[in-house]
Amino acid sequence: MLASNPAPALLPLALLATGKALPSRCVSSAALDLQFGHAPGYVLHKSGIHQRHYASATENQAELAAAALRDAMARGGIRPGSIDLLLSTSGVPDQALPAMSCRILEPAGLAAGTPAFDVNASCLGFLAALQMAAGLLASGAYKRIAITACDLASRGIDWADPEASLIFGDGAAAVIIEAGQPGTSEQGILMQRFETHPAGKHMCQVRAGGTARNPRNGVVPQDYLFAMQGRAVFKFVAGLLDGFVQRLFSGSGRGLDDIDLIVPHQASHLSMQHLRKRLNVPLSRVMDIYASHGNQVCASIPTALHEALDSGRARRGSRVLMLGSAAGVTLGGMVLAL
Amino acid sequence: MLASNPAPALLPLALLATGKALPSRCVSSAALDLQFGHAPGYVLHKSGIHQRHYASATENQAELAAAALRDAMARGGIRPGSIDLLLSTSGVPDQALPAMSCRILEPAGLAAGTPAFDVNASCLGFLAALQMAAGLLASGAYKRIAITACDLASRGIDWADPEASLIFGDGAAAVIIEAGQPGTSEQGILMQRFETHPAGKHMCQVRAGGTARNPRNGVVPQDYLFAMQGRAVFKFVAGLLDGFVQRLFSGSGRGLDDIDLIVPHQASHLSMQHLRKRLNVPLSRVMDIYASHGNQVCASIPTALHEALDSGRARRGSRVLMLGSAAGVTLGGMVLAL
Repeated sequence: MLASNPAPALLPLALLATGKALPSRCVSSAALDLQFGHAPGYVLHKSGIHQRHYASATENQAELAAAALRDAMARGGIRPGSIDLLLSTSGVPDQALPAMSCRILEPAGLAAGTPAFDVNASCLGFLAALQMAAGLLASGAYKRIAITACDLASRGIDWADPEASLIFGDGAAAVIIEAGQPGTSEQGILMQRFETHPAGKHMCQVRAGGTARNPRNGVVPQDYLFAMQGRAVFKFVAGLLDGFVQRLFSGSGRGLDDIDLIVPHQASHLSMQHLRKRLNVPLSRVMDIYASHGNQVCASIPTALHEALDSGRARRGSRVLMLGSAAGVTLGGMVLAL
Repeated sequence: MLASNPAPALLPLALLATGKALPSRCVSSAALDLQFGHAPGYVLHKSGIHQRHYASATENQAELAAAALRDAMARGGIRPGSIDLLLSTSGVPDQALPAMSCRILEPAGLAAGTPAFDVNASCLGFLAALQMAAGLLASGAYKRIAITACDLASRGIDWADPEASLIFGDGAAAVIIEAGQPGTSEQGILMQRFETHPAGKHMCQVRAGGTARNPRNGVVPQDYLFAMQGRAVFKFVAGLLDGFVQRLFSGSGRGLDDIDLIVPHQASHLSMQHLRKRLNVPLSRVMDIYASHGNQVCASIPTALHEALDSGRARRGSRVLMLGSAAGVTLGGMVLAL
């Protein structure tokens, strides 16, 4: 009986493996209390984070991304030579030129000649890259794609900012995907939607790093640091969220009740609480790794996805909603049937 | 008779419109001779460029990209509201965070809510974005995609470098594409191939701009400038080119004789001459805008494509080979049936 079959995925996609990597230095909130002269418990209370990892001065973003990809390959038993495209995503890359993906190939052990491109959509870079990868697989251009997501937010933290300085952690995650079987597979992207609302483009920024502010045309040290209008961006996203989620599910005949696990961007303690409240879902249906990782920028969603799979909270057959907002301001959501 | 029909495109794709934009300042090679105290004719002889455009101090990369997109929309009679995805590509963007595409939406007149992502593959960013856009259209995720390609190389020129300082020009180009009709359309991507060879990753760089070198971990002013090992990268690419072109056409039953016009990356006078010689094609079959534009980084290929269409050297039905190399080192080629 046709009606008893699961509806075919909108866009077939098979997630073969996930992996993650953290830099060496694990920093507790108690250690930050000491370092910045706060009362014991201040940073934990203010940030909601117990610990996060920061890269040491000698650690390197491309190598951390490569470590996450090696982890995914090892877990999936996947040969590096079988990957025919690498997409690297980051909120901020390691250097302006060339694309960071070119510096991930060698430490990841991928074959010379494997094409390597960068995709950037701030904290939603992983979802954007996954959407693009699904398209590339659908078009037949590639057969097996690796995506790395890596940020070293610690390199741009403004320690004078009482709010934004405490929420970040460094890290990397990776996934390896293949095309599923069109029409027959139950695995793939069931729904996806992105919206960029440029009225919020000034709310989260690193102004330096490109042609707009550099030593030649007047840059100040502050321009290299992450600058956030925390209250403004929270309010801006809150005003868009309900409508966005409605539009994401619109016409699908599905809703939040059909989702086994929500894997949100781990933006901040407040934003995670707000999301659960607005969507009216219990903590048991939300993947929350914020307290142990912090906001890892574009590595947050794939790291949380990896932890969900690794801990058994998501498994083959699960329907996972990845959801978040990013500097831009972009909102993004994708329902993946694993 | 089936055999008399043109073979269906590998990947249907309809190019609806192209456009370009140049910053206000047109700089002749004679003016650079004067500025840097060279003998008359030195810069022209050394670079092969008569004139190029440089952005003034007040001009802005995202606004230039938007101007190219407005030009494409005007030429194609395309409403901004009909575009459902913007992909921005640049060798170096305007700032590190958020993605430059977020700052192109408003000056281009695109609707708030239009998703906007960045794609980066150095000088081949446009081809990478076009490949991704074709995939996204094939997957049904979007219906009409705008791609902008914009670089302001002048902001990172090392004037002390006798070679690399003279070859660049600033500029932007844009294309608007839709999915073609699978199986019936003659328009689309007939062949495409990318290879990244990371052994050349140090040959062309801007080291600053990200997490690797910034004020916090030891940056020097030189790190913000484009650094090129000209001879090394020329030799490296020359050693790969013949094999790459063979692999691009391999199994297609087609060859260079089936191509109406080659639209190469306008890397340098020497590289353009070398390409024609190695491929053994006359100047009449190569789009060469280098003398009037310089190397516009990722804007070179789409600007040359636009000029080819605008001048009638390419038209509906033409088979165009876009081909080039990029920092990374990445080689890329795509045959588009227009």
